[in-house]
Amino acid sequence: MTLRESFLKKAWYAAAISTEVDEIQLFHRKILGKSVMIYRLADGTPVALHDRCPHRFAPLSMGKRVGDDVSCPYHALRFNGQGQCTHNPHGKGHIPQAAKVDTFPLVERYGFLWIWMSEATPDLELLPDYSRLEQGPETGVAWTYMNLPVNYELIIDNVMDLSHIDHVHGEIITTRGQLSPKVPQIRETPTTISARWEWTQQPAMMIFAPFMPQPQAEARQFFDISWYASATIQLTVAATQEDGEGFEGALDQYDLHTCTPADPFNTHYFFATRRNHVEEDGEYNQLKIAAMHAAFEDEDGPLVKAVQAEMGDADFFSLDPVLMSNDVAPVKVRKLLDRMIREEAAEAIIAAAAQ
Amino acid sequence: MTLRESFLKKAWYAAAISTEVDEIQLFHRKILGKSVMIYRLADGTPVALHDRCPHRFAPLSMGKRVGDDVSCPYHALRFNGQGQCTHNPHGKGHIPQAAKVDTFPLVERYGFLWIWMSEATPDLELLPDYSRLEQGPETGVAWTYMNLPVNYELIIDNVMDLSHIDHVHGEIITTRGQLSPKVPQIRETPTTISARWEWTQQPAMMIFAPFMPQPQAEARQFFDISWYASATIQLTVAATQEDGEGFEGALDQYDLHTCTPADPFNTHYFFATRRNHVEEDGEYNQLKIAAMHAAFEDEDGPLVKAVQAEMGDADFFSLDPVLMSNDVAPVKVRKLLDRMIREEAAEAIIAAAAQ
Amino acid sequence: MTLRESFLKKAWYAAAISTEVDEIQLFHRKILGKSVMIYRLADGTPVALHDRCPHRFAPLSMGKRVGDDVSCPYHALRFNGQGQCTHNPHGKGHIPQAAKVDTFPLVERYGFLWIWMSEATPDLELLPDYSRLEQGPETGVAWTYMNLPVNYELIIDNVMDLSHIDHVHGEIITTRGQLSPKVPQIRETPTTISARWEWTQQPAMMIFAPFMPQPQAEARQFFDISWYASATIQLTVAATQEDGEGFEGALDQYDLHTCTPADPFNTHYFFATRRNHVEEDGEYNQLKIAAMHAAFEDEDGPLVKAVQAEMGDADFFSLDPVLMSNDVAPVKVRKLLDRMIREEAAEAIIAAAAQ
Repeated sequence: MTLRESFLKKAWYAAAISTEVDEIQLFHRKILGKSVMIYRLADGTPVALHDRCPHRFAPLSMGKRVGDDVSCPYHALRFNGQGQCTHNPHGKGHIPQAAKVDTFPLVERYGFLWIWMSEATPDLELLPDYSRLEQGPETGVAWTYMNLPVNYELIIDNVMDLSHIDHVHGEIITTRGQLSPKVPQIRETPTTISARWEWTQQPAMMIFAPFMPQPQAEARQFFDISWYASATIQLTVAATQEDGEGFEGALDQYDLHTCTPADPFNTHYFFATRRNHVEEDGEYNQLKIAAMHAAFEDEDGPLVKAVQAEMGDADFFSLDPVLMSNDVAPVKVRKLLDRMIREEAAEAIIAAAAQ
Repeated sequence: MTLRESFLKKAWYAAAISTEVDEIQLFHRKILGKSVMIYRLADGTPVALHDRCPHRFAPLSMGKRVGDDVSCPYHALRFNGQGQCTHNPHGKGHIPQAAKVDTFPLVERYGFLWIWMSEATPDLELLPDYSRLEQGPETGVAWTYMNLPVNYELIIDNVMDLSHIDHVHGEIITTRGQLSPKVPQIRETPTTISARWEWTQQPAMMIFAPFMPQPQAEARQFFDISWYASATIQLTVAATQEDGEGFEGALDQYDLHTCTPADPFNTHYFFATRRNHVEEDGEYNQLKIAAMHAAFEDEDGPLVKAVQAEMGDADFFSLDPVLMSNDVAPVKVRKLLDRMIREEAAEAIIAAAAQ
Repeated sequence: MTLRESFLKKAWYAAAISTEVDEIQLFHRKILGKSVMIYRLADGTPVALHDRCPHRFAPLSMGKRVGDDVSCPYHALRFNGQGQCTHNPHGKGHIPQAAKVDTFPLVERYGFLWIWMSEATPDLELLPDYSRLEQGPETGVAWTYMNLPVNYELIIDNVMDLSHIDHVHGEIITTRGQLSPKVPQIRETPTTISARWEWTQQPAMMIFAPFMPQPQAEARQFFDISWYASATIQLTVAATQEDGEGFEGALDQYDLHTCTPADPFNTHYFFATRRNHVEEDGEYNQLKIAAMHAAFEDEDGPLVKAVQAEMGDADFFSLDPVLMSNDVAPVKVRKLLDRMIREEAAEAIIAAAAQ
């Protein structure tokens, strides 16, 4: 049984960090197997087009901007941001009716450009509210991007099972062995899977300890993660030294891990993080995002790549994984995502038959 | 529908520029998926053999010359230019009857070694007359070679539709926008497709202007191209400032673009050019061929490679290209070549059935 | 007909040179398509495990040793040398019954770790006696290893037909043209193929000549090689200047060439050599193994790689090789090995049907 090659289409995928795309350059990224060109109109509106001229299939992103239009690098057909051909320098300049480029709806939120790759009407209800990222000063939030040559579900597995933290990562986010023995509380909706761990450690994680009332003292902490189809995990981690059970006034960090498959074996991995402490220190902010990027790239990265190499194109469950208490959340995600993909495919078949 | 993997066999392909092959070295090139060794006998006669010892399949081109024969690098079986084994150092020296290497007919003309890869009798009528290349001084003609990791039909498309010139190439051969609006005149025979553009521009293309009576004045120009199966395009470009319609006495350049598939995704691209002006200047000749080589490698090359990457192994027409007036000639070539390949395959099946 | 992708399972393959594996590091090697981890327990006992955690398929060899156990690099499941999970840091620490890793029997002999990849009971009778390697001082024996990106049978072909020596290798082991004309004597058993050449040359091979009574005089020599399934060739070469027919008191060299397929197109090539002269000179010993390694890597290597490239994934016999007297031994090996693989596969099918 080989790896699923289809992706969930009716979902918002991060196409780019907002700052990756500007009003000057033509930006290219492969998304769900398709070449996509993204750029901003003069008024800043981002647009996404199939990065393939319908004439002879040259990538439009190798072309030139002509105002808000793009001129193909090969024979200079020109297209506007709606994918319509606006200029044909050949012959009498007649524009064939078929001279159109597919466009993809984009929404700019939370510092990302989110793309809708389905032919169905885009459904903004399917883009969760991550507005916490936008609340607070600019020096308290950061974004990063990396490309990993692995199937995206291996990255979801990685984040959905935080029990790897003490074994893979270093001192800075260690739970001092407290996390692994905890079985997370699971919450489910028809389209989401969440998990929550609460524990006590001394001192708190080093990302919090220096900023707590008693840096060396014990702290109560939690991780709370929620998966949203098809490949976004919102993770909150917090620490407090207040008595009781709640986390009001806790130091926290609100992260987004979101994966966009380039193809079945390559994934765009985006990460964003907002914190409610040391919010005004731009230098700290830079160091922090660089450290997190390095942790993914240097610590998780080699592992998921090695797992991918070992799995080849085999389907995860076909290899009979030995599953344990720490696998509840990632396995629920795999099964729910699988069901959603199959249901979407079935709907498409029924819709096609009805025509 | 995936890319056609078969090639037209009954055709002459450029195997090498004449100067690539000498009486000392054993030259290797992959042609239509086959390893071919080419070398010259002591009297200069070029020979082409399957570059594979029939014993244990070592490439003979890794071996040594022994007079006009070649000794296999592995166990020293020796073969002559007719592919016959002439020496077996093993046992009693008996030469097995099967110890033969396929040979391929070669013809040396126009500065190229042309190879015939079909098992049918080679037909010299199928090698067009490009003798214009041989007329004039040595300093008025030049050849070059490059390897492009693309299907050869993408290179034919490129040359058969010269409307790309103003959009892809630089100042030196610009038509100042005159070419694209022209719909070329098409001429057809059962085995060739030709196209001709005539226009006026001021000044003439920079390859001509400095050598014209009035360098800054208007000139009449033409491009005339003819495709010959399976992958050669003869292109003439000319400019004149004489009144009237003819081009007698015009400055011109006579080029040959000829492609030899190594395999479906790799192509040997050969180019030759002869001009009727500045014919005695060897330094200019060098600069000119270097500039043309650079244009193909640096300007057309990235585009056809990007198109190949975008098309993958899909057949051109299966991707529903939007075709325009400038596509008439290349589309006619694709269709005619496709018909010739299918007819040749059908003949082979009929011939096999008749045996 | 494409290359056989199955391997003989009931056989001992060299997994590593003994010195490649120690009590500190976790050693990885791909064998018959499987990832294998090898390490030594504190008492020196070598163990081999499937290099894949049964939980999420991370390579255990990227993990850490914990005494005689190994901790997975991803979620820290711990396994002992018998492949049994001994520690689960997650939840209540329950160890699932399925939390086991396949192990592979290892035998350490003749300076190698030999691995048994079949699920059948390991049969030590199938490991031939190469104890000559262990007889004599340490400075008279050496081992080396290289990886060649070729099918292992091409390396067996190479060694089983020594007629290539005068044509591929340099002065140091030349037979001065004496070997090729000899047809070797073949000896066969149901599971082995041997070949022997005897001849006279002057002077002896340079590996012997300087150590003979009369360095420049004629010498009698022999090569004797025996193939053992699936990929080991024991080669003895000797030289004497005594009258008569025997080789008592001759200078000799006793070599082992043993191949372990990583996969159908990549082979671990191990070599060991023992000599009965200059046995106490460690510096000479170093130079000698380095020279032999270089001969395989620089002289045989490029040839077998070129042959592999030319053959692609085609089966050897499907290409209709022209076979000669020097091919008797290697062809007998190919046919016997093929029969053994087919018989083993048939037995497996019968056994499965009987269950």
